[in-house]
Amino acid sequence: MDNFMIYLPIVMAVIGLAFMLYKQAWVLKQDAGDGKMKEISDYIYEGALAFLKAEYRLLTFFVIGASIALAGISFVVPTTHILIVVAFVFGAIFSAFAGNIGMKIATKTNVRTTQAARTSLPQALKVSFGGGTVMGLGVAGLAVLGLTGFFIILFQVFMKGTWTSTDDMTIVLETLAGFSLGAESIALFARVGGGIYTKAADVGADLVGKVEAGIPEDDPRNPATIADNVGDNVGDVAGMGADLFGSYVATVLAAMVLGNYVIKDMGGSIQDAFGGIGPILLPMAIAGFGILFSIIGTMLVKISSDDAKEKQVQGALNVGNWVSIVLTAVSCFFLVKYLLPEVMQMEFYGEGLKEISSMRVFYATIVGLVVGGVISSVTEYYTGLGTKPVLAIVQKSSTGAGTNVIAGLATGMISTFPTVILFAAAIWASYAFAGFYGVALAASAMMATTAMQLAIDAFGPISDNAGGIAEMSELPKEVRTRTDILDSVGNTTAATGKGFAIASAALTSLALFAAYVTFTGIDGINIFKAPVLAMLFVGGMIPVVFSALAMNSVGKAAMDMVYEVRRQFREIPGIMEGKNKPEYGKCVEISTKAALREMMLPGILTIGFPIAIVLLGKLVYADNNQLIAEMLGGYMAGVTVSGVLWAVFQNNAGGAWDNAKKSFEAGVEINGEMTYKGSDAHKAAVTGDTVGDPFKDTSGPSMNILIKLTCLIGLVIAPILGGHEAGATTAKASCCVKTEQKLDCSKCDTAMMASMTKEECAKMCDDNGCSAECKEKCMSMYDENGKFKGEVATEEVEVVQEVDTLKQE
Amino acid sequence: MDNFMIYLPIVMAVIGLAFMLYKQAWVLKQDAGDGKMKEISDYIYEGALAFLKAEYRLLTFFVIGASIALAGISFVVPTTHILIVVAFVFGAIFSAFAGNIGMKIATKTNVRTTQAARTSLPQALKVSFGGGTVMGLGVAGLAVLGLTGFFIILFQVFMKGTWTSTDDMTIVLETLAGFSLGAESIALFARVGGGIYTKAADVGADLVGKVEAGIPEDDPRNPATIADNVGDNVGDVAGMGADLFGSYVATVLAAMVLGNYVIKDMGGSIQDAFGGIGPILLPMAIAGFGILFSIIGTMLVKISSDDAKEKQVQGALNVGNWVSIVLTAVSCFFLVKYLLPEVMQMEFYGEGLKEISSMRVFYATIVGLVVGGVISSVTEYYTGLGTKPVLAIVQKSSTGAGTNVIAGLATGMISTFPTVILFAAAIWASYAFAGFYGVALAASAMMATTAMQLAIDAFGPISDNAGGIAEMSELPKEVRTRTDILDSVGNTTAATGKGFAIASAALTSLALFAAYVTFTGIDGINIFKAPVLAMLFVGGMIPVVFSALAMNSVGKAAMDMVYEVRRQFREIPGIMEGKNKPEYGKCVEISTKAALREMMLPGILTIGFPIAIVLLGKLVYADNNQLIAEMLGGYMAGVTVSGVLWAVFQNNAGGAWDNAKKSFEAGVEINGEMTYKGSDAHKAAVTGDTVGDPFKDTSGPSMNILIKLTCLIGLVIAPILGGHEAGATTAKASCCVKTEQKLDCSKCDTAMMASMTKEECAKMCDDNGCSAECKEKCMSMYDENGKFKGEVATEEVEVVQEVDTLKQE
Repeated sequence: MDNFMIYLPIVMAVIGLAFMLYKQAWVLKQDAGDGKMKEISDYIYEGALAFLKAEYRLLTFFVIGASIALAGISFVVPTTHILIVVAFVFGAIFSAFAGNIGMKIATKTNVRTTQAARTSLPQALKVSFGGGTVMGLGVAGLAVLGLTGFFIILFQVFMKGTWTSTDDMTIVLETLAGFSLGAESIALFARVGGGIYTKAADVGADLVGKVEAGIPEDDPRNPATIADNVGDNVGDVAGMGADLFGSYVATVLAAMVLGNYVIKDMGGSIQDAFGGIGPILLPMAIAGFGILFSIIGTMLVKISSDDAKEKQVQGALNVGNWVSIVLTAVSCFFLVKYLLPEVMQMEFYGEGLKEISSMRVFYATIVGLVVGGVISSVTEYYTGLGTKPVLAIVQKSSTGAGTNVIAGLATGMISTFPTVILFAAAIWASYAFAGFYGVALAASAMMATTAMQLAIDAFGPISDNAGGIAEMSELPKEVRTRTDILDSVGNTTAATGKGFAIASAALTSLALFAAYVTFTGIDGINIFKAPVLAMLFVGGMIPVVFSALAMNSVGKAAMDMVYEVRRQFREIPGIMEGKNKPEYGKCVEISTKAALREMMLPGILTIGFPIAIVLLGKLVYADNNQLIAEMLGGYMAGVTVSGVLWAVFQNNAGGAWDNAKKSFEAGVEINGEMTYKGSDAHKAAVTGDTVGDPFKDTSGPSMNILIKLTCLIGLVIAPILGGHEAGATTAKASCCVKTEQKLDCSKCDTAMMASMTKEECAKMCDDNGCSAECKEKCMSMYDENGKFKGEVATEEVEVVQEVDTLKQE
Repeated sequence: MDNFMIYLPIVMAVIGLAFMLYKQAWVLKQDAGDGKMKEISDYIYEGALAFLKAEYRLLTFFVIGASIALAGISFVVPTTHILIVVAFVFGAIFSAFAGNIGMKIATKTNVRTTQAARTSLPQALKVSFGGGTVMGLGVAGLAVLGLTGFFIILFQVFMKGTWTSTDDMTIVLETLAGFSLGAESIALFARVGGGIYTKAADVGADLVGKVEAGIPEDDPRNPATIADNVGDNVGDVAGMGADLFGSYVATVLAAMVLGNYVIKDMGGSIQDAFGGIGPILLPMAIAGFGILFSIIGTMLVKISSDDAKEKQVQGALNVGNWVSIVLTAVSCFFLVKYLLPEVMQMEFYGEGLKEISSMRVFYATIVGLVVGGVISSVTEYYTGLGTKPVLAIVQKSSTGAGTNVIAGLATGMISTFPTVILFAAAIWASYAFAGFYGVALAASAMMATTAMQLAIDAFGPISDNAGGIAEMSELPKEVRTRTDILDSVGNTTAATGKGFAIASAALTSLALFAAYVTFTGIDGINIFKAPVLAMLFVGGMIPVVFSALAMNSVGKAAMDMVYEVRRQFREIPGIMEGKNKPEYGKCVEISTKAALREMMLPGILTIGFPIAIVLLGKLVYADNNQLIAEMLGGYMAGVTVSGVLWAVFQNNAGGAWDNAKKSFEAGVEINGEMTYKGSDAHKAAVTGDTVGDPFKDTSGPSMNILIKLTCLIGLVIAPILGGHEAGATTAKASCCVKTEQKLDCSKCDTAMMASMTKEECAKMCDDNGCSAECKEKCMSMYDENGKFKGEVATEEVEVVQEVDTLKQE
């Protein structure tokens, strides 16, 4: 293997991780403040670690159980290799490790940001964004390192590092899917569990603290206040990190799978300078370069004036973000030119083989980058402070909580319009440019700047925590003012970050969906078969029920918290006078336990349903794997379409309610009167925000994991339902009859054969795994010169021989 | 045409209408009470008529516009006949007429029910249910009369009353689709406009009356109170009636279309005692008998004791309902036996031709009847007074409006689980029994008792109105107690009726969807084509945006009402002291105008999107009608799946909130304390109900129309995109190559031809519209004895001739 391109992404990943270590050291070197600040920060750090520890314990059981199941599959299905278990375990470990890095740095950065805010705003931004950068590079670096590393190992194991056939590469990539599955499983725990944790702690702390005891937010006398701050890290930092880690890996994997199918469409092998695997290397290369450009982008995020406001801070973030996106676009151009054959053949379902120039792949990557940018604007329009939809919700607050809630729901619902049109256009356009390979590369390009996106995302909760620490430590007002500016920007980036996350999840799922169909070797997914249509319905229902379960989980977990806080207020003497410290640890424990317990049911729903469908299918249609594969595909499509809708609806409704409530802090004009905090309208807006909290922080973001994990499980199950050796496992098999979607190999297509030589036909038979019997039959229709002579009944062949004999006579 | 079975449904319909007239006369003969009661009742009657008048004016324009569009289509598309315009206009007129009957009798029955309630509860039930019966039979009778009548006329026009070919019958049914489209268009106006009207009036009356002026509900001093009562009739009576009229017609039509395809699958014609159209007559016959059994059912609805409570009243309704369902099931058995061939052949996509016994069709009808019954129980479980989910919402009210709203949303969301599983199982099972013909007949059987369902449904708002009149007329308390019992039962039947309506809409849409696919002649709908997948996404988004628009419309219309009521309070002196009468008419006018104005945008969305997709498709894929048809099919599937989910979610959440609020009237135990009306928890529950109102009365029920109309528009557009003369209009055309889903007619399938005689092959060519050239080619492969001799190259044929010559020599 003398192919340096395969190692390049690893080099980039290592550079990213090295820069991360450098940045981490810099952040940790910053002043962590004095006594009380340090104490509070330590509580948060320990609480976060306690959650991680409990989560990892549970995860260990899960990983062991899932590994056994995967091992079982690898024994039953000949094309699934036992190495998938190893890949799965490593995927889980890498994802957990990345989460660990993020959570640790976030909980160390918060207090340092508070301390920095005592000096100046630019310094505070530098520290908090530095923490975010560590998180972002940790996630992206580990993702690229793990995925590329495993690919190289598996490429060596199964193919000895040189191209053999698309079938062998399929085994490599199927095994690699284990890595992605491991990562996404951890994301399920981190995102759903984290989402429940953060809102349970938040709501629990507010219900007893603010409402019952009448003490302000972040008051150290509230036993749940540390749990609340831990929650910000658990949900917004670790949850988002694991989510994007999963998306990142899954996207690149799906693009690699589809790259392999491009090679297949081109005749089973190509000649290029990269050992014939250029289309497979491309997504990894884009991801690798994305890390470099993210580093450059993060370096540009800075402000110089201490008098800067939200606008300047947001501007600094935007500069960094856009520079990294533009650089990625430029690099895509060169990478595509360099790595891909100038012209490729791709099979378009229902349209046949088409010639696709490499430039069209580049256009597809541009589609992805544009979607990533536009989705942020759309999200901001529906959820940002002072925008038309948010102001409309504010107005509706004047007639009560009911009208506020209706307006918020309607805003979230209407926001699906531009979002879905954007997604649909992106799917269509990137597919038109370069088939599903184009869709996957659009997603890959969009995800390339994941490190930058995460840095921007993670900086929000860090600043939020910094503000909390300032409050709890009773620091001077200007400190809080500075952290508030950062926090306010953080709120906007949190909303747009969710938009990016669902956009990436949607494109990733589609790419996985495409990979699934090619893996199973089915003729596409026909929803005009009733069982498939039924599964489309069932799939559509899952995100709705999942969301409801997650919302109810928050309610139950919050109630546990309420009882614990009440108990402490009752049983610990002097707690309200500040004479005795509350038992913060107990609340952290309650939140941790409740989050992990309550995420079980949604988790089982996510993992169990695809498996149940396959089992049910096997029960009813034992010998029709094709139909079962289509049913599962219908289910995946239902989950994806409905999941995207519910994610957008819930995220944006929640974001809009949140900012409608926040609008009252500065005062808003309603019916010509200035209205402030404490007014009836404000109370109505608070009710709306209460509804929106689980929407935007628990159930909404969980949809990402739901749709990706569903498609990944489908991909791992795929080999059971057919797999690449289609000839052997599906009912209809083998020679040259060209049906709409693929070469059927059970009979000779005389019309087609008439237009090809014997040699060409033989090659086609081999490529499509025709049975020996069928191939022989087809071959017999050519004469010794390789010319087609038509299908002649045996007696007529005899007659022809006879005439020859007669003539010779 | 000596076929009495074709006329039988008309006879049944006439019997139904005759019984309706008899019942109408009886109701109108009842005492309409004294001065004030009569006065109020007249106001409501006039308000309702005013709305109808305004609606009809708008409708006239719409019908003219749509007729011109349809006429345009009929000129462009050779297979669409101009008669479709006539059918469309009559469909609209019949539907409007049915709505007219329902609204008039409802507004006449309300005051008579009040008067009857002065004597006894059994008498009040008899009168109110009598009104409902008139409504139910009017809708069902006109639907069957119109549809069957038009079928007979078109059958005469196009086929001279005798079977010719499935293609001719397809033209008959395509033209008949105009009738269904007309009916469903009116339903759009009635359901969506009515839904906006009723909630705008309700919310407007409450906001100024109850909240600002502090006067009770139904107080005659409130200018909007008449509009509020008119709204009950406009939304719940006329809207529901038009909705079910549309479902009824569309279901029977879809079943007829699929019946025609059964005949096609059986070789293009069958021999039976009904001129070879048994499978087409069956759904009409079931509908006809359903009217008779509904009449029997309505006769059984009675109670004897004046001390009866809700349970007994509900029991009486249940007896009538179940008797009509069981009788329908029995009649299905005999009708299926009688009308269908004992064994049929049906094409199962991807599985080929199967032999289906007529009994399996009967099982499919049982599936439909079971779904109709079970869906009511499921709906009642999630929305009924005192059920676990509703009590959970009550409990959550104690912690504020926010938690109440979350609990209600979660309940609605979770309720999609059993509902969708039920639908999916029904689709799967009825398809497994008898293909999509089975699905359509399941829907037909379920809809057969529409008259009974509507009678039960309409009795609710009549009783509600009766109570309002009692209140406004200041009648003795026991009168209100009696009407309250009826009203309370009416609330339950309203919720379960919505369950029935969405179940029927879902099955109807699926049947229409199946009819669409067969009409366009496409190979199913493959969502693994990116443009199709993109349209699935877009389709999924439409119900969400439609719901949001409808909700916002209610808000805007309610605001108009608020300003008008405020104006009257301000400008009319002595209004609050009862010295001067408010201008009820003005409020009615405002509500009417606002409803009709606000329903425009959702209406345009519904009608415009399918058309836009076809235009877009034509622009991009000018020569690929197959792909455009698949795109539209993907859109239809997306709308249906998402629409069903959002309908169930919104209806059940709204119903649950409503009853959670009502629970406080009798008092509920929260955390061990009895809590009543006026408590904080009750106020929180009122907020939830405010959110639920547009959910359950406007946006939720509108989903039915949205999904049905979308699929119907698809069906009408279908001929443009291919149609039954597939050979002429789709790209790939004609002879005997059997691809997965259908007979392709562009080349000869020698493998298949070897197993059939020349005659059989010729017939197959004719049935599938092979080109003359192709047929000739295929025919040339048989020898003069009709034996297959294989495809031989021309020179070889010459050789064979040569050898014959040589031999003779």
